[in-house]
Amino acid sequence: MTSRTCLSIILAAGEGTRMKSALPKVLHEIAGMPLICHVAKAVRSTGDGDIALVVGRGADEVKAAVEKISANVSTYVQQERLGTAHAVLAAREAISRGYDDLLIVFGDTPLIEDSALIQARSKLAQGFDIVVMGFRPADPSGYGRLIETEGKLVAIREEKDATLEEKTINFCNGGLMAIRGDLALPLLDAVRNDNAKGEFYLTDIVEIAHRQGKRVTAIDVPLDNVIGINTRVELAEAEAVWQDRKRRSVMLAGVTMIAPETVFFSHDTLVAADAVIEPNVFFGPGVRIASGALIHSFCHLEGAHVGPNAEIGPFARLRPGADLGEKSKVGNFCEVKNATVAKGAKINHLSYIGDAFVGAGANVGAGTITCNYDGYNKWRTEIGEGAFIGSNTSLVAPVSVGANAYIASGSVITEDVPDSALAFGRARQVTKEGRAAVLREQYAAIKATKKAEK
Amino acid sequence: MTSRTCLSIILAAGEGTRMKSALPKVLHEIAGMPLICHVAKAVRSTGDGDIALVVGRGADEVKAAVEKISANVSTYVQQERLGTAHAVLAAREAISRGYDDLLIVFGDTPLIEDSALIQARSKLAQGFDIVVMGFRPADPSGYGRLIETEGKLVAIREEKDATLEEKTINFCNGGLMAIRGDLALPLLDAVRNDNAKGEFYLTDIVEIAHRQGKRVTAIDVPLDNVIGINTRVELAEAEAVWQDRKRRSVMLAGVTMIAPETVFFSHDTLVAADAVIEPNVFFGPGVRIASGALIHSFCHLEGAHVGPNAEIGPFARLRPGADLGEKSKVGNFCEVKNATVAKGAKINHLSYIGDAFVGAGANVGAGTITCNYDGYNKWRTEIGEGAFIGSNTSLVAPVSVGANAYIASGSVITEDVPDSALAFGRARQVTKEGRAAVLREQYAAIKATKKAEK
Amino acid sequence: MTSRTCLSIILAAGEGTRMKSALPKVLHEIAGMPLICHVAKAVRSTGDGDIALVVGRGADEVKAAVEKISANVSTYVQQERLGTAHAVLAAREAISRGYDDLLIVFGDTPLIEDSALIQARSKLAQGFDIVVMGFRPADPSGYGRLIETEGKLVAIREEKDATLEEKTINFCNGGLMAIRGDLALPLLDAVRNDNAKGEFYLTDIVEIAHRQGKRVTAIDVPLDNVIGINTRVELAEAEAVWQDRKRRSVMLAGVTMIAPETVFFSHDTLVAADAVIEPNVFFGPGVRIASGALIHSFCHLEGAHVGPNAEIGPFARLRPGADLGEKSKVGNFCEVKNATVAKGAKINHLSYIGDAFVGAGANVGAGTITCNYDGYNKWRTEIGEGAFIGSNTSLVAPVSVGANAYIASGSVITEDVPDSALAFGRARQVTKEGRAAVLREQYAAIKATKKAEK
Repeated sequence: MTSRTCLSIILAAGEGTRMKSALPKVLHEIAGMPLICHVAKAVRSTGDGDIALVVGRGADEVKAAVEKISANVSTYVQQERLGTAHAVLAAREAISRGYDDLLIVFGDTPLIEDSALIQARSKLAQGFDIVVMGFRPADPSGYGRLIETEGKLVAIREEKDATLEEKTINFCNGGLMAIRGDLALPLLDAVRNDNAKGEFYLTDIVEIAHRQGKRVTAIDVPLDNVIGINTRVELAEAEAVWQDRKRRSVMLAGVTMIAPETVFFSHDTLVAADAVIEPNVFFGPGVRIASGALIHSFCHLEGAHVGPNAEIGPFARLRPGADLGEKSKVGNFCEVKNATVAKGAKINHLSYIGDAFVGAGANVGAGTITCNYDGYNKWRTEIGEGAFIGSNTSLVAPVSVGANAYIASGSVITEDVPDSALAFGRARQVTKEGRAAVLREQYAAIKATKKAEK
Repeated sequence: MTSRTCLSIILAAGEGTRMKSALPKVLHEIAGMPLICHVAKAVRSTGDGDIALVVGRGADEVKAAVEKISANVSTYVQQERLGTAHAVLAAREAISRGYDDLLIVFGDTPLIEDSALIQARSKLAQGFDIVVMGFRPADPSGYGRLIETEGKLVAIREEKDATLEEKTINFCNGGLMAIRGDLALPLLDAVRNDNAKGEFYLTDIVEIAHRQGKRVTAIDVPLDNVIGINTRVELAEAEAVWQDRKRRSVMLAGVTMIAPETVFFSHDTLVAADAVIEPNVFFGPGVRIASGALIHSFCHLEGAHVGPNAEIGPFARLRPGADLGEKSKVGNFCEVKNATVAKGAKINHLSYIGDAFVGAGANVGAGTITCNYDGYNKWRTEIGEGAFIGSNTSLVAPVSVGANAYIASGSVITEDVPDSALAFGRARQVTKEGRAAVLREQYAAIKATKKAEK
Repeated sequence: MTSRTCLSIILAAGEGTRMKSALPKVLHEIAGMPLICHVAKAVRSTGDGDIALVVGRGADEVKAAVEKISANVSTYVQQERLGTAHAVLAAREAISRGYDDLLIVFGDTPLIEDSALIQARSKLAQGFDIVVMGFRPADPSGYGRLIETEGKLVAIREEKDATLEEKTINFCNGGLMAIRGDLALPLLDAVRNDNAKGEFYLTDIVEIAHRQGKRVTAIDVPLDNVIGINTRVELAEAEAVWQDRKRRSVMLAGVTMIAPETVFFSHDTLVAADAVIEPNVFFGPGVRIASGALIHSFCHLEGAHVGPNAEIGPFARLRPGADLGEKSKVGNFCEVKNATVAKGAKINHLSYIGDAFVGAGANVGAGTITCNYDGYNKWRTEIGEGAFIGSNTSLVAPVSVGANAYIASGSVITEDVPDSALAFGRARQVTKEGRAAVLREQYAAIKATKKAEK
């Protein structure tokens, strides 16, 4: 969007003790992606740039997570906790490289939107020196107020320091800032810790800059953009906001959802127009749904592709590598993993198809199992075009069933079946007239004995 | 309710481009029924009458849908889009047949309730000439205001034409109207298009009629009754309103739902008192649930009947033609299709029962599959009263198992089993001592080789 | 908490006709426990004490339910319905035993919290004679108002008897009370029925006591604490409040829930920190989840224990007696009942494991069924440590598979398999080249014939 260079400093050194978790707070996930990656994705959206992470514990894991989003990441450990300005200065080395713009964001505000960051940077491009992201809550009490005079932001006032008049202001500090790159270090170094807690507050640079005659302003961003996460309750609330945004955008793009509030997307789910999603569907990472596809209730998908006009569920599970062709069907209580199901093929009931290829138009009967694992190795099953696999068949891999071959119900198939061949592997039925009664008497007698023993 | 004749004109010619769909807007569904059918059902509730559809694209499909609700449907295509009065006049032929009452409704306001339409028509019966359905939103801005003087409705004023005082009115035009039949054509023909857009507005007839000394009034209907649907987001919102109405009425009639917001009904679902529905249940069309039935979580039902005190799920799927008798049970990961399950019969785990009859008190073991399809034909399975089907049995249809017969576990049954007979069809077990170790060594060696090859 | 003795009178004689149910109202459940048991649990939390139930129909069942919570329960039947004071006096015998404190609560206000009752009793301990639980609704109309003068509660005024000024009071009567034990009978006996309905109102004792110079006060409790349940709609609303409280407390204790609003707990569910619960999970009674466990979407659990770092689902059902060891896995479309799954064992797909022991590290293949029922008796299956059960195996109990044994896929196992042995029980495959085509012709011909017959 711009030729200006940018450094984004992501503050992520907070302990996160209220999460009550062994995992660093910013690695908790929403939509299947760590909080800090949502932030990194948002800053990336403002144009190419570098990222400086200021971290506490778990530095390596946090860096590794962010590097999945952006290549240019450097990490700085904040050894002591002496306030937000101090945290930013942990990245002094990065700041001193000389960038046009500096974005200061938080690793635990994952709902920040591209548009807010883009607006902040464009204010810098217009000549402002500091841009503070503000928001307007229904009840401002407890938040730092943005004190404006004649259209200029002159200070950020903490609740406890605010006059009665200032307390009526409902424009509040969201914490995130954009700063002109060459002013950042002088301003940050001017911050003092002569306050009750003895900390260096980032918010102080507003007043310092204003006194120096710099141009400071605030922009108005939606409340959810600056929500920080401190507990798992807040994590769940942020997840809900994210999901609602995604559902809305998916529906407006032409996807029907009967009960959107019961459909859960991943950060990277793709759904094409005129697909229909019934209630209660869960999308893990890496799913693509083509146009006209019908996802019935109670489906769980991860790493799968559902082709045009294909139909799955209810109660289908697609695992990574499931690739469903046009007009194919995967029905109830079926699991498909690392398997291609070609055009028009059907796997309708109670089947496990893993490490397999199912040819176009093939019909896989109820209760079919690909026996793909021998305890050590995974083996492949190939089912030819137009083949018919009778119900309750075990396909002991590695095995192939030829095109248009026919497997009788209840068979255990251990050897390859040629094209157009018929195969069966099942015992002949034996029927003993009147014997059920004898058996029942025996079983009933056992029951009676057991009861008597108690 | 009344002996007055009525024509309902359903306006359904809108393009619906914001739906981003190949399907005409009014054929999108809520509760499994097209939007326009909900409207047709509501007008039908005011008494027998005729329906005139004013349609754009998809005229045949729309007519076919409405004819499932009402027999007397005529269709008129609005060729050009010259405003709502022009749209109504597309049905001039129908109007000129001479009806006592005329109802003008919209194909995309599916939440209109019987009571609102009945109230509007009863106003006509009381001597009013035009009855406009109004609503009172929290914020009226953007809506046409209903201008009343001395209890008479004198005009509908668009926002842009309203005075400041008129803008404070929060009684707004819902669009739907009832008109005395013989006045409709003269009034509609009096509408002019001398406005910015050059369109003929239906709302103008209010002012025209008032000037002619006709009796015009407005009734107050709930907001949701007049909500129009333009996007899939609004479609989902309307679905939510419909579902909440249904859930409420079902609960007030004596059905327990632990989490009603997770239960989804179809337009025709019937549930008797003292049934219990756990969270997360989906009802497709054509389901009846008898008194005392217990529907566990994660069930999906379509075209099925669940008898008194029967129990299904969790994770049961009943497909069309499933007919469950009194106190029968269908348990987890079971699918029943086109099958009668008689009184007290049990299908508890991982089974597919299709095209079958299961006799009273029969017990169908885990993993039982009816092999009902040969690739061309569907065949029936009959299971007699009191029969015991051992686990993991394949019943290769057509086949019958007699009353009180006993099938050993793991059998493939291809021939009929007489009453009280014992049948098995499974191979004898062979055990080779110490051989598991040998096998494991072989498999481990293969794994090692594979690894080395990488 | 206190050495004062206490009698809690639970009023539960209401007819509950609006529930439209054969079950007494107070036995309807939230979180899988009868309403009245929630109330009994709350009064028990204020310290040991006795409970007097005032009941109408279903006295025995109601008493039996409450006795599961508390040992000291006596029951009194209110023969006629002559008002709340009359109802309390049905328990005259209990009151006259002489208690320090009397708590009067309702069987149909299940959301009363321990803290409210504890606060009420501590007011008695401070010297107050009557403590009324009040609440502050957004709109007080319809409720009895709490009339206070100089910090004293002087009367409870019904809406219809209130002056205009009194109607502006939004502090309302929640119905629940605490009374000094020795004052209860004299006060209750002083209540008169000289009112429109001719009933004896409990609320009258406030004014009586005040006139006698007793110390009467009101405490402020959250609205939901005093919500009474009269319909199934209100039952569902109370369930929702209970679930939200539980979800919040579970999350604040360190459990991650992606969509808490889709997870349903039972009254006794225990979940340890750092467990993760995906959307759409249902917990029936008696479930314990250990730290680090991962519960995927669409799971249904009752009476089960999930060990540390174990993983279940999606689509798993654990029934009573399922005991999953550390790092064990139970996957999709699997049911486990009355079975121990030892450390690291895996049951990943489409299996039924009932009445069984699965040894550490054992692998149970897809489609495995324990055939545990012979129509009369349940039998056990033992699977040794490290055993491998091939896919689609039927284990016909009673049967044991030794440690490190290996069962070939598709086998029916009817005899014990020694440690390290290999066993199979399946028919040899027969393949007939070209025969599929012949078969298809036959089936197609049948289809054609059938069609012609129609």
